[in-house]
Amino acid sequence: MALIVQKYGGTSVGDTDRIKAVADKVIETRKQGHKVVVVVSAMKGETDRLLGLSQQVTDQAHGRELDVLLSTGEQVTIALMCMALEHKGYPARSYTGGQVHILTDDAHNKARIMDIEAARVLRDLNDGKVVVIAGFQGIDENGNITTLGRGGSDTTAVAMAAALNADECHIYTDVDGVYTADPRIEPNARRLDRITYEEMLEMASLGSKVLQIRSVEFASKYNVNLRVLSSFEEGPGTLISQEEDFMEQAVISGIAHNRDEAKLTIVGVPDRPGIAFSILGPIADANIEVDMIVQNVGVDNTTDFTFTVHRNDFARARKILDKIAEELGAKEVKGDEGIVKISVVGVGMRSHAGIASRMFKALADEGINIMMISTSEIKVSVVVAEKYLELGVRTLHTAFDLDHAQEQSA
Amino acid sequence: MALIVQKYGGTSVGDTDRIKAVADKVIETRKQGHKVVVVVSAMKGETDRLLGLSQQVTDQAHGRELDVLLSTGEQVTIALMCMALEHKGYPARSYTGGQVHILTDDAHNKARIMDIEAARVLRDLNDGKVVVIAGFQGIDENGNITTLGRGGSDTTAVAMAAALNADECHIYTDVDGVYTADPRIEPNARRLDRITYEEMLEMASLGSKVLQIRSVEFASKYNVNLRVLSSFEEGPGTLISQEEDFMEQAVISGIAHNRDEAKLTIVGVPDRPGIAFSILGPIADANIEVDMIVQNVGVDNTTDFTFTVHRNDFARARKILDKIAEELGAKEVKGDEGIVKISVVGVGMRSHAGIASRMFKALADEGINIMMISTSEIKVSVVVAEKYLELGVRTLHTAFDLDHAQEQSA
Repeated sequence: MALIVQKYGGTSVGDTDRIKAVADKVIETRKQGHKVVVVVSAMKGETDRLLGLSQQVTDQAHGRELDVLLSTGEQVTIALMCMALEHKGYPARSYTGGQVHILTDDAHNKARIMDIEAARVLRDLNDGKVVVIAGFQGIDENGNITTLGRGGSDTTAVAMAAALNADECHIYTDVDGVYTADPRIEPNARRLDRITYEEMLEMASLGSKVLQIRSVEFASKYNVNLRVLSSFEEGPGTLISQEEDFMEQAVISGIAHNRDEAKLTIVGVPDRPGIAFSILGPIADANIEVDMIVQNVGVDNTTDFTFTVHRNDFARARKILDKIAEELGAKEVKGDEGIVKISVVGVGMRSHAGIASRMFKALADEGINIMMISTSEIKVSVVVAEKYLELGVRTLHTAFDLDHAQEQSA
Repeated sequence: MALIVQKYGGTSVGDTDRIKAVADKVIETRKQGHKVVVVVSAMKGETDRLLGLSQQVTDQAHGRELDVLLSTGEQVTIALMCMALEHKGYPARSYTGGQVHILTDDAHNKARIMDIEAARVLRDLNDGKVVVIAGFQGIDENGNITTLGRGGSDTTAVAMAAALNADECHIYTDVDGVYTADPRIEPNARRLDRITYEEMLEMASLGSKVLQIRSVEFASKYNVNLRVLSSFEEGPGTLISQEEDFMEQAVISGIAHNRDEAKLTIVGVPDRPGIAFSILGPIADANIEVDMIVQNVGVDNTTDFTFTVHRNDFARARKILDKIAEELGAKEVKGDEGIVKISVVGVGMRSHAGIASRMFKALADEGINIMMISTSEIKVSVVVAEKYLELGVRTLHTAFDLDHAQEQSA
């Protein structure tokens, strides 16, 4: 008998029929003899409906009151889920974030979980009840309602699993696991049976939008076994856990890509100490996140400085950079929104040399020009022109032997 | 500077434009230098929407989870109301029933308020904030969400006013006060400036659906000055308070009517001790509320026994009565759904004789036959055929000098 936390997102609980279907899945797990804690999001569309109401009242919803408003979304789902379970004869009990003391800091709209009181939930589980918890929300130490930010329900589930010392935390999504590449781009992509937290973090942050990054960090910190599964199909999904010996056989776990970035270059700035800070300081002050950064070797005591930002921040960043360029006496500012980042990710990289060169050769063979390169211990990323996205992903998927081993586990 | 609790119902906060209009009314009161606590209901239609969702999941929503579901309705309103106030530069703070510790018993769906923690609200008021509280809801001593039943927001407002020792509790509705009769029936009906709790209780229970009966009882118990006002028009409304000397001048405050009742008569039952209980016991066991009861003087050791029930319960009550009639060997059972109850109400009645006979004469002069009579200290009620409703109300309104003294206060 295991203790399992199951998290169902907004699409999985999108209407009352789906809620009833989820109740059936929960009951299936109960019938196998497991204790089940269910964490749910707001029904799909509900958060947008609530945001719409707030926008009719004010153009800038206040943090505290926005949380009071949005937290009703999950509260509706937990009540309906318990009704569905009890209707089928399975005792259930719902809790809001506040009721089960999901204590957070007081950063409204993006609060962080600090503590969870597990006693009440454990008591209900021992009484044979299914416990249904509102994701995404908590309370601060003054009893104010807080929310964790969009997608925070994943984090609630993982935190709950950690607090309860659960055997596994199941995240139900609209995909049946984590893939070696985006199947819409690479038809030969295959589902991974296992992947490490670190790999998942790289995959997630690079655009494989399966899980909230924070929830993976949380799972890694508390060593929670995280499993990504489909709400709509049967299957084992992908287990995300800590690195184990048998996982070393595969060098590369997958090919990730991200088309949400844009590239900015400031050309011909004086090559002197502190120049990076003069450029990136004002960008950071404007709350713009910078991803890749490359500084070219300069000629004539000048250098070129290139970095990427989210496309949504591109116009704002460019404006700031124009001003900096003028102040520094730079030659010009160049921007490019037509780029994409492609990465190879894998913990095996640590013990295998030559991954980067193998990657560059494969791309060169297809005539794909690399604009920027960035490496970490378990990934190599390149920026290429957007038109090469599909070709690049497929080329690398093949080059790293990912598509012809359907049965091999990563 | 006064402390005023204002309660706005579902129609008054029916959409975001109305919420903004209510915010303006609150701000007006703030500008007059008063401290304001606002109690709000769910936006009109929202409770029905939530009930609809629950019915899609189960045909019998469980008490606890139904409360978790329904309580989100007011939570949405408090957040939007605070946003509207803050948007206009007035600091505001929302609280759910649980957050401000509206402690109730654990009777889900119809809980009763036992205690309220006023300290937090008073602190916010002293900080210059408007406090906005979710009506209709509380928590039990285990932290479970409870609701007070439909219309319970009035009770929340009065309980809040009592706990805060507020100067007045304003209930905003779609009428501009309590009238001497229903203006749709009696065009000469006029708004009362003042009325006692007792009179209001009689008026309310007799069908003048302005206020929740429980909230008036609550106000009476804690001596809260209750004022009924219109959400949509300016005006002083009607103040409901305890009886004071100057109020004795008017004998009758108003003419109330109720067309929701039906009459049942069991004819020719043995006239012996305990007969009333033999008849009403099974009716009470079936959870049917009986209003007026009349037992006729019998002949031949038999008697006729007549009582009224809500029309919704008529068919059920008749079935039970048929069975009782058979057991008791009664002659027959007669039912009549085409009746109406008309009452004259007024505390002045206590010190004035002859109210009942004046009432009966006025009705007789118009040829209106009286079927049943029931009296209390401050009201006389008669049951007449439904077709006489309008004529009866107007006749009594005139007979008790209610329609020709527009400026006289009750």
